Amino acid sequence: MMSCDIDNLGFARVDLQRKARQGIGEVIYGEGKSAGQIIAILKSLDAHSQRPALVTRLDSEKASIVKASFGEDFSYFPVARFARLGEAKKSDGLGFVAVVCGGTSDIAVAEEAALTLEALGNEVKRIYDVGVAGLHRLLACEKELKEAKVIIAVAGMEGALPSVIGGLVHSPIIAVPTSVGYGASFGGVSALLAMLNSCASGVAVVNIDNGFGAGILASKINHIR
Amino acid sequence: MMSCDIDNLGFARVDLQRKARQGIGEVIYGEGKSAGQIIAILKSLDAHSQRPALVTRLDSEKASIVKASFGEDFSYFPVARFARLGEAKKSDGLGFVAVVCGGTSDIAVAEEAALTLEALGNEVKRIYDVGVAGLHRLLACEKELKEAKVIIAVAGMEGALPSVIGGLVHSPIIAVPTSVGYGASFGGVSALLAMLNSCASGVAVVNIDNGFGAGILASKINHIR
Amino acid sequence: MMSCDIDNLGFARVDLQRKARQGIGEVIYGEGKSAGQIIAILKSLDAHSQRPALVTRLDSEKASIVKASFGEDFSYFPVARFARLGEAKKSDGLGFVAVVCGGTSDIAVAEEAALTLEALGNEVKRIYDVGVAGLHRLLACEKELKEAKVIIAVAGMEGALPSVIGGLVHSPIIAVPTSVGYGASFGGVSALLAMLNSCASGVAVVNIDNGFGAGILASKINHIR
Amino acid sequence: MMSCDIDNLGFARVDLQRKARQGIGEVIYGEGKSAGQIIAILKSLDAHSQRPALVTRLDSEKASIVKASFGEDFSYFPVARFARLGEAKKSDGLGFVAVVCGGTSDIAVAEEAALTLEALGNEVKRIYDVGVAGLHRLLACEKELKEAKVIIAVAGMEGALPSVIGGLVHSPIIAVPTSVGYGASFGGVSALLAMLNSCASGVAVVNIDNGFGAGILASKINHIR
Amino acid sequence: MMSCDIDNLGFARVDLQRKARQGIGEVIYGEGKSAGQIIAILKSLDAHSQRPALVTRLDSEKASIVKASFGEDFSYFPVARFARLGEAKKSDGLGFVAVVCGGTSDIAVAEEAALTLEALGNEVKRIYDVGVAGLHRLLACEKELKEAKVIIAVAGMEGALPSVIGGLVHSPIIAVPTSVGYGASFGGVSALLAMLNSCASGVAVVNIDNGFGAGILASKINHIR
Amino acid sequence: MMSCDIDNLGFARVDLQRKARQGIGEVIYGEGKSAGQIIAILKSLDAHSQRPALVTRLDSEKASIVKASFGEDFSYFPVARFARLGEAKKSDGLGFVAVVCGGTSDIAVAEEAALTLEALGNEVKRIYDVGVAGLHRLLACEKELKEAKVIIAVAGMEGALPSVIGGLVHSPIIAVPTSVGYGASFGGVSALLAMLNSCASGVAVVNIDNGFGAGILASKINHIR
Amino acid sequence: MMSCDIDNLGFARVDLQRKARQGIGEVIYGEGKSAGQIIAILKSLDAHSQRPALVTRLDSEKASIVKASFGEDFSYFPVARFARLGEAKKSDGLGFVAVVCGGTSDIAVAEEAALTLEALGNEVKRIYDVGVAGLHRLLACEKELKEAKVIIAVAGMEGALPSVIGGLVHSPIIAVPTSVGYGASFGGVSALLAMLNSCASGVAVVNIDNGFGAGILASKINHIR
Amino acid sequence: MMSCDIDNLGFARVDLQRKARQGIGEVIYGEGKSAGQIIAILKSLDAHSQRPALVTRLDSEKASIVKASFGEDFSYFPVARFARLGEAKKSDGLGFVAVVCGGTSDIAVAEEAALTLEALGNEVKRIYDVGVAGLHRLLACEKELKEAKVIIAVAGMEGALPSVIGGLVHSPIIAVPTSVGYGASFGGVSALLAMLNSCASGVAVVNIDNGFGAGILASKINHIR
Repeated sequence: MMSCDIDNLGFARVDLQRKARQGIGEVIYGEGKSAGQIIAILKSLDAHSQRPALVTRLDSEKASIVKASFGEDFSYFPVARFARLGEAKKSDGLGFVAVVCGGTSDIAVAEEAALTLEALGNEVKRIYDVGVAGLHRLLACEKELKEAKVIIAVAGMEGALPSVIGGLVHSPIIAVPTSVGYGASFGGVSALLAMLNSCASGVAVVNIDNGFGAGILASKINHIR
Repeated sequence: MMSCDIDNLGFARVDLQRKARQGIGEVIYGEGKSAGQIIAILKSLDAHSQRPALVTRLDSEKASIVKASFGEDFSYFPVARFARLGEAKKSDGLGFVAVVCGGTSDIAVAEEAALTLEALGNEVKRIYDVGVAGLHRLLACEKELKEAKVIIAVAGMEGALPSVIGGLVHSPIIAVPTSVGYGASFGGVSALLAMLNSCASGVAVVNIDNGFGAGILASKINHIR
Repeated sequence: MMSCDIDNLGFARVDLQRKARQGIGEVIYGEGKSAGQIIAILKSLDAHSQRPALVTRLDSEKASIVKASFGEDFSYFPVARFARLGEAKKSDGLGFVAVVCGGTSDIAVAEEAALTLEALGNEVKRIYDVGVAGLHRLLACEKELKEAKVIIAVAGMEGALPSVIGGLVHSPIIAVPTSVGYGASFGGVSALLAMLNSCASGVAVVNIDNGFGAGILASKINHIR
Repeated sequence: MMSCDIDNLGFARVDLQRKARQGIGEVIYGEGKSAGQIIAILKSLDAHSQRPALVTRLDSEKASIVKASFGEDFSYFPVARFARLGEAKKSDGLGFVAVVCGGTSDIAVAEEAALTLEALGNEVKRIYDVGVAGLHRLLACEKELKEAKVIIAVAGMEGALPSVIGGLVHSPIIAVPTSVGYGASFGGVSALLAMLNSCASGVAVVNIDNGFGAGILASKINHIR
Repeated sequence: MMSCDIDNLGFARVDLQRKARQGIGEVIYGEGKSAGQIIAILKSLDAHSQRPALVTRLDSEKASIVKASFGEDFSYFPVARFARLGEAKKSDGLGFVAVVCGGTSDIAVAEEAALTLEALGNEVKRIYDVGVAGLHRLLACEKELKEAKVIIAVAGMEGALPSVIGGLVHSPIIAVPTSVGYGASFGGVSALLAMLNSCASGVAVVNIDNGFGAGILASKINHIR
Repeated sequence: MMSCDIDNLGFARVDLQRKARQGIGEVIYGEGKSAGQIIAILKSLDAHSQRPALVTRLDSEKASIVKASFGEDFSYFPVARFARLGEAKKSDGLGFVAVVCGGTSDIAVAEEAALTLEALGNEVKRIYDVGVAGLHRLLACEKELKEAKVIIAVAGMEGALPSVIGGLVHSPIIAVPTSVGYGASFGGVSALLAMLNSCASGVAVVNIDNGFGAGILASKINHIR
Repeated sequence: MMSCDIDNLGFARVDLQRKARQGIGEVIYGEGKSAGQIIAILKSLDAHSQRPALVTRLDSEKASIVKASFGEDFSYFPVARFARLGEAKKSDGLGFVAVVCGGTSDIAVAEEAALTLEALGNEVKRIYDVGVAGLHRLLACEKELKEAKVIIAVAGMEGALPSVIGGLVHSPIIAVPTSVGYGASFGGVSALLAMLNSCASGVAVVNIDNGFGAGILASKINHIR
Repeated sequence: MMSCDIDNLGFARVDLQRKARQGIGEVIYGEGKSAGQIIAILKSLDAHSQRPALVTRLDSEKASIVKASFGEDFSYFPVARFARLGEAKKSDGLGFVAVVCGGTSDIAVAEEAALTLEALGNEVKRIYDVGVAGLHRLLACEKELKEAKVIIAVAGMEGALPSVIGGLVHSPIIAVPTSVGYGASFGGVSALLAMLNSCASGVAVVNIDNGFGAGILASKINHIR
């Protein structure tokens, strides 16, 4: 019966059936929710054995309030503003996922992807600060890129990274534009458009700064059977 | 040696190594190329055993000129403006790919995806005209959607199809916005933005009307091992 | 005579005739007005028997200053940043209005609509956190949606909610895009465009975050005779 | 059973249940469909007693082909590029709907709204060429505007018509921006934005040039009970 | 000789010849300049007998520092963030200029226009809070509008005011869009576009919130001979 | 009585009172009107002694049909796509208006302004092809520019002409952006934005390619008294 | 005297002094000019010994009319829609300029740049169809790229070429976005933004499809002394 | 071997080979990096003899922390938010570079360009506050402009400066749009578009506010041989 599958907290209807339906339980988007609301939803998920439970876009202030409720079981990763209640799943994917980013400032988004992947049972290789204007740094990692089952390519500014990687490898590539840049980067639009227009085939794109979404999708691909 | 891998036709450097490097041979984007140029590139690919060779965005006028050069080996699909030299690969994927579209006018783009997939050795199930404003039509296909290894969701206008499907299934979803619509659809921008902002996780997006790109990516995922 | 119908406060010409002309008295848009200005306008409306008088976009700081002037007669609703001087009208509409929203973060806008409706004499049913990526939550409320005389559908991100509801019901739907989202949601533009392009007929759209405007319109429809 | 409710024509799944579900049968969007496809869908609707069946955005060339199939039962209205198979419903609304437009060039869109309304059983009063730069023309119609149950306000360029009407009347107003204009009108965007930002309350907006959608919504409101 | 006409302060080249050349001396745009820089430029202008000297976009904090240097001769108008060193010129125009605005929140911009006009020797009539959604408030001022030599029409949101006034009067109209509004007003773009597309002839537009520019232009017109 | 002032042709309500109200009779925007409609409106205006009657945006094909109805009294100017029924008014302005344009391709728009001005009784000096990248051409005309009562500055591409002229003269300047350009000129948006942001004061802007509107406004200014 | 330096043809003021002032004579932008106008300007330039005289954006139809006037002296290059009256200057630059492009469809723009360069006395090396998705094609040309004095990098779609080249070489790079692409390439905007946001330093950008402008600038740099 | 050329700091891979490859060592973009990260990268560069090492977009707070680590060797320029570790190179260019800006508020960006140039061994002449609305100020500097090897033209608002300079001189011009302005300047977009559409040839553009990039490119041109 449907009513058992939804935990109606008043301000939110926690979707307890989602794991069965979509393979991954409900994840809490932290921005715009109070620490109290986050705790309530986490408790509801926890009460229904939905560990690990994830929170994204969680600032450090709210994170410490939430941690006070759950203690050691609750891990917070400040660079990615990401939290996890319970242990990450054991790695059980087809292979590893490479998370690649162009510059130092893209690391926050790349980490959101990497931590999501690890929580969901994927081995991750991080290849950071290998932007296309220093091609040899990227080419030095060609072997690892070729071995990855899936690649997440994170870049701001001109967003060329997925196109260049796309020309080197077999695997599916998920491109993540970041809001890194200024002026005519328009908060990530420039990178987004470049990625959508990639001349390399086999590239798909998620929303600006959406490391989490890229991680989910990569995990689904890496667990396909 | 590199020079053996590139066939320099003057107006184009045919990339014969791409199949080895990326798993899929070079594909000809027909728009803006003359029938003569397309024939020359097809001959170069053919001479290097790169069948099936694909052409996208090929209008029917040029298609008949090209067909005159290759005869029965050359198949043209007018709805998708798509052509193939040689037989499609035998189906050897993990499962089937569902190509779903919202309305009758999205079929051209959906077919480009489906034909690309079939050429590359994927079984395809077409589920057309199941837009979200008639939910029961979509729900009637829930079982097939759940069994697909990958789903390509094609939609114009408000682009809600991938979000709704994303709430029903486990599999990775590739969203293709189409330029179908008028007024504030802005040639597909409205659908593109909706898909990038999908509240369903595990959705990635390709360029407007890019059925081909979605097909390539879905094929890569369906052949992952 | 015209001069009796306008109360010229210097910084504002309070339109006392509006209730007669448009059916609803002048409502104060709180943003950009000082607490003092708001009190003055409220007093002018009150002096001309225009209760309930409404204030929208009122932050809590100004609200407490205003409350100090009017006491118990003045009610403030912080989530919606909405205030009302005097009692809400008795419910006298044709039926009830359903106010539906996609996610927890859309509740502020939904509440602005709901409180506006209640002030103007409408029964309201709130159906919150039923976004399209968890379709069963929405379908669980299908009966209530079908019975509503008017539906206000509030959603951010991909803004698909009105399209999906539009496929299920007879009644007029007023869509309210919210600025909830990030990246390519562009402060609500993504949801706005999706709603304008809804493939469901019988949907009209108000400005981003304009719960108040949706409430006014729904009330007019619910009181039509 | 669901299969009886959908007539699957291959290229389209005709939704025969829609009338029951949404109160109005499926309407054919003519653009991008061949005359043959339109005839097939009309026949399917007709076979299931769904008269009147409507076609929008139908150019005169296709219209004459379709007319050849249905003869006198098929009426075509070239200004609005609108067609109807079967008689319009008898007028049975609460009152009449006023369709108002700003300039001569907006008439095509206004007529699409008016003909949709008449097909669905609404009395319509047309008030055309009453743009706000000649206010006396509009004010001369104030009485009719005040008596209308619903008003559809159609305008291009600066799109001010709904705001001005909104200040004069009680009734709900549906605003339709048109693509009439040049330069910075951006194909109707200027009018669309103006209407979304209307300072008059009780105004909602449909897509650019969407006279049909406005007509559907107005008919729903005019038939509310 | 040119060198006498420019006072080179290092960070700025004060253009002492501008009054002769353009009829109006150099005016200081306060935003982004320090109080010290403003004082230095004012002193340079003063030393060359260029009173009244004007400063726009001056916040109150900097204003009090500047006032400390010039004392009574320096007048600051906080609503308009406008300052004047020296007396306003005696009124010597052809007639009066009407400064009209739509809502209370547009007054800051309207006042910038009005104070600029007065400084340059124009009689001004202020007609505020007469937005088009309450037409009778505007029509009540029709006589004054008709007598004005020039009209400055200031409005945010849908920016319809100049169109409506343009239909009533003979005189040239300068339209000033304001950034008042939210959501799809896009910081004044909505009003700007509406004004550029005004169906009333004889309307020209200045930048968003540019009350100063409108004042300068109106003064030039009012002093034409 | 109002009914005498409007000639209701069915598709248009000819506003015969406009000349009295606004100083200039109704002008026919030719685009989107049939030759027959234009003839009907011209006859209505003519019957009420409203010569000269003007038509803008009239292509040469329709022009010859219209000319067949009116003969010698009807003058057509193909470069500007402008027509006039009856003689231009005698020049009775305060002085002359300078119509200046940047390049050869801007002449069509400049001529629309110049012909409008001449029809309404203004002396015009045409100063064409004096773009800012060849400053000496513009400076060679400085004397004429300084003597003009009003200046209309027409330019496409970077739209810098009004700024440069604005630094040289006293008179009011009306800037007209044109759609001349390619790529990032976006159909005149680039010139429009530049003109709105002109660092010269006393510049106002009309819609892209709106030579007619600039002419009307300049005529009003040149006839001010 | 100034009047000798300008040849006033009525519709154009041919700037005969430009060669002296800017180093390069006036170049004719063919779009929007009639064959007759182009012939007249060419004759004026020719009469003042300004060979070679160049015409850009000249379609083949007009080109043959112009050729009829000048015969063998007039060369037309259809791919680039470029023409030259008189011989190209002898090569006298510091070195050669590399003109590089991403795909076959960018060749028209690349050729406009190359032909401009050659006309103005530069040696050119063309490196075409070396897009970043096939990196080895580009790397195969690394030596030539390193030896070039200036590089013009022409690309559409994601516009990544200048960034990648910028990471390999010392020389200044001029990036030319092209309108090649579809959907979210928005007529070259995507490539333009990517190039403006290039993470490689030493890259500057010209307008979309502006091969000519890039050629002029590269020639100036290659002739610096 | 590659590994010697990259100093992998974990959060960054310092590219020690870049100076050899591109002629200019890696430059640190300060925004979004912590003082600690900046110090670490500077130390790595310093350890490999890459003085002068530059930091851009460095706020004064971080600057003082960094200065504490390096003392006198570290120079900070607050107006440009620019820092240099080590001495500027001796001037060894072909000539001097003119850095020109339109208004006082553009100086920050102009200084970033000038300081970059000086660090890299270029003589710089600063010509500030010479906007096009006061043409005589610019013309007074014509001789210096003509003598410069390269010109950097920095401007906000209407961005006309490069066009006007482009008409006066031989040398290459690098245009830098700034975010100076308000309203329809859209954070520099207005100036950017104007510069891309400059009717003067030989102008190329860098990103909004990118004085650094312009400096790098100008230095490369000034050192060409």
